[in-house]
Amino acid sequence: MSEKGDKSRENIVDAAYALFKKKGFAATSINDLMAASGLKKGTIYFHFSGKEEIALLVLQRAREQLMEFLETVTTGATPADALENYFAGTIALHHSHEFIGGCIFGNAALEMADSNELLARFINQVFRDWTMKLRQIIAEGQGAGQVRDDLAADALAQQLVTATEGAIMLARLRKNDAPLRTCFDTFRALLALPQATNNIE
Amino acid sequence: MSEKGDKSRENIVDAAYALFKKKGFAATSINDLMAASGLKKGTIYFHFSGKEEIALLVLQRAREQLMEFLETVTTGATPADALENYFAGTIALHHSHEFIGGCIFGNAALEMADSNELLARFINQVFRDWTMKLRQIIAEGQGAGQVRDDLAADALAQQLVTATEGAIMLARLRKNDAPLRTCFDTFRALLALPQATNNIE
Repeated sequence: MSEKGDKSRENIVDAAYALFKKKGFAATSINDLMAASGLKKGTIYFHFSGKEEIALLVLQRAREQLMEFLETVTTGATPADALENYFAGTIALHHSHEFIGGCIFGNAALEMADSNELLARFINQVFRDWTMKLRQIIAEGQGAGQVRDDLAADALAQQLVTATEGAIMLARLRKNDAPLRTCFDTFRALLALPQATNNIE
Repeated sequence: MSEKGDKSRENIVDAAYALFKKKGFAATSINDLMAASGLKKGTIYFHFSGKEEIALLVLQRAREQLMEFLETVTTGATPADALENYFAGTIALHHSHEFIGGCIFGNAALEMADSNELLARFINQVFRDWTMKLRQIIAEGQGAGQVRDDLAADALAQQLVTATEGAIMLARLRKNDAPLRTCFDTFRALLALPQATNNIE
């Protein structure tokens, strides 16, 4: 494809990303995409088969960003530090968005779980990857004696992902970080991380 | 209002409830409401100022159903029994829906948190009421020595609500109850409920 064609594709995906975050998938029309990208309907359909293909590209891009985010925030001298950095990084991320938009995967899951099998499968895989990333850190923490080891790392990682998703939703409703802080403070104590162990054991 | 008028209002709210659960708020048009209720556009606008008023009535009805559900499933000889019944009742509820539709408040929150202050406030209050109901049982459990008391009942109740919301989302994506089972099994152990204490302490 020509350079100009690549740029048009990129413009459409950029515009779709912003619109999906703001309005959701269902409420975004091809007319919205035309207005936001400055391209004609024919150009959009020249590049994409339709909204589903555009949505998949948006979700793929969002997945790359999530994986980069997780790589960045889960560094630390110890597994407990990595979890603390994940907590702090997640709160900072949603502050930086002013609690608008929430999590694009949570939003997309609720819109697409019953109506689009292809996209639902993709989103499901993102949650699996996210869980596996946290599972690894939790398992390392258990090996290092920093995380309680009487519960499977798999289950704790899933609990952390689902509780985070729920807390992101509440933080978005309330436009403040209290639900995320409560979520992570409670999780810290439930996992018996070093920082909390002093207070609760 | 006449009996016929009441019935029309009721029909519109019924139709809107089903459509909002299936398609969401934004994707439901007045045309959809006309088709589903069998009423003309003029009749709908005679009874309601618009979609927001209808959405509020749908959410009010859903709130009554949630509160009835919580009253029913949180009975038990002890606070630990009440929590177990809440876990089992929530799983049974989502089985009965075949994991379609998820939680109308979670869905509505993600659609409306950034775009409709009135509805966002209402949904926020529903999550508060739900949390307060669980808080009461958890506090009773702490008083009875059945739930760990080193963490505030408020925080544990919020964690249970947000983790439940996240698990409902995953269960809906995967169309099975595994995410809900993992959520409640893990919570049972984290709260140190009697059933789990035997295994983990």
